[in-house]
Amino acid sequence: MVEVAGAGRLPKSYVVRTELEQILDELAEGDPVPSERDLAVRFEVARETVRQALRDLLVEGRIRRQGRGTVVSMPKMVQPLSLRSYTEGALSYGRVPGRILVGWDDVPADADTARALDIPAGDPVMHLERILLADGERIGLESTFLPLHRFSSLRNTYDPTTSLYAAVRELGVVFGSATERIETVLASPREAALLECTTSLPLLLLHRRSIDEKGDPIERVRSLYRGDRIAFETQLIK
Amino acid sequence: MVEVAGAGRLPKSYVVRTELEQILDELAEGDPVPSERDLAVRFEVARETVRQALRDLLVEGRIRRQGRGTVVSMPKMVQPLSLRSYTEGALSYGRVPGRILVGWDDVPADADTARALDIPAGDPVMHLERILLADGERIGLESTFLPLHRFSSLRNTYDPTTSLYAAVRELGVVFGSATERIETVLASPREAALLECTTSLPLLLLHRRSIDEKGDPIERVRSLYRGDRIAFETQLIK
Repeated sequence: MVEVAGAGRLPKSYVVRTELEQILDELAEGDPVPSERDLAVRFEVARETVRQALRDLLVEGRIRRQGRGTVVSMPKMVQPLSLRSYTEGALSYGRVPGRILVGWDDVPADADTARALDIPAGDPVMHLERILLADGERIGLESTFLPLHRFSSLRNTYDPTTSLYAAVRELGVVFGSATERIETVLASPREAALLECTTSLPLLLLHRRSIDEKGDPIERVRSLYRGDRIAFETQLIK
Repeated sequence: MVEVAGAGRLPKSYVVRTELEQILDELAEGDPVPSERDLAVRFEVARETVRQALRDLLVEGRIRRQGRGTVVSMPKMVQPLSLRSYTEGALSYGRVPGRILVGWDDVPADADTARALDIPAGDPVMHLERILLADGERIGLESTFLPLHRFSSLRNTYDPTTSLYAAVRELGVVFGSATERIETVLASPREAALLECTTSLPLLLLHRRSIDEKGDPIERVRSLYRGDRIAFETQLIK
């Protein structure tokens, strides 16, 4: 058995946060959260203590800013880890998917991208960077790299605010399997600006490599999701 | 196309961090990181700016504290998302798994646990809380809930510093499938103390529900992993 260091002297902000969570449980989505001043009086603590507790709840997505106030959030969106596109995943969760194009360029493949796409380093790849929306809210930033020799025709046919997977399938390509790695990181200043969050908000970083049913590479994807707005779920089978 | 707010005026600490990453790329695992003072002179910035950049790299797991200094980290451990136990996953990655028992008690099932284990709320469940080690380093905190009516015999036979999955299998139970949800959170003070990290380090939170091949619940698990030390990987198939 180990001793929990400091278990007997929890920070006040943590105690306040735990009590606040109980208050939030009684409220409905969109209800206003009591003001910092009211909460400081109620819990008999400094306003800075309440502020820290509210910051923690913001990071967890239990509450969110709305105009000049703070309201109770809806629960995190749960996306399936699957070969389905973001579009299909969001729709299945009852959210309206959307995308904002950040950039669409041909770039030379760096070493990692070349290895993932099975092409020589320096070969041109199509790079598509988009902000992912759910009901108009910015929840992700997706960077997709496609081998140009295979997908250059998308330039003429594809609307980058729609599902890329649907467009790829229309070319007759069948998704076979993918490897996906998940980790957690903090946003860079550029990413935070694009996601309208701060650089201290934990994000989920996903790296995906998809191949078709013949084993030929389709894409390498790096996507970042706001940790306060989204969770991922998967089925594990034998 | 959208404008990246602030893209033209990156914080100095971010610029320093990017240059530091290039320096780290040239070093080997375990090499000492140049001192704050040396880096401040080299980049012609304030020591506080260097300190912020080093903090970011610590959170990402690129560097770690060792004694009174800071050294280059080994890459994050990648665990498969699968029905295998933590023990098997760590071994397959060439790391020596270990566990420290935090607590092992019978507790009444709360609403979520009761639903997951298909028992009435308030029924007794076995709760096992353990710190997960890789090569002696604390990387995770695992809370497992088992239906007592099914697993009470573990009390007499099971060594809680070994693989629980192996012990469950020895009872003749065959794992059938599991649902796993992944999100990112910050540590509570208690969790940070047990994981020897700070409350500002992003963690990966996994919730798992496992059932046997007949569909009967085996366990509900809540596990927290240090985001600077571990990533998860999964194969997506049609």
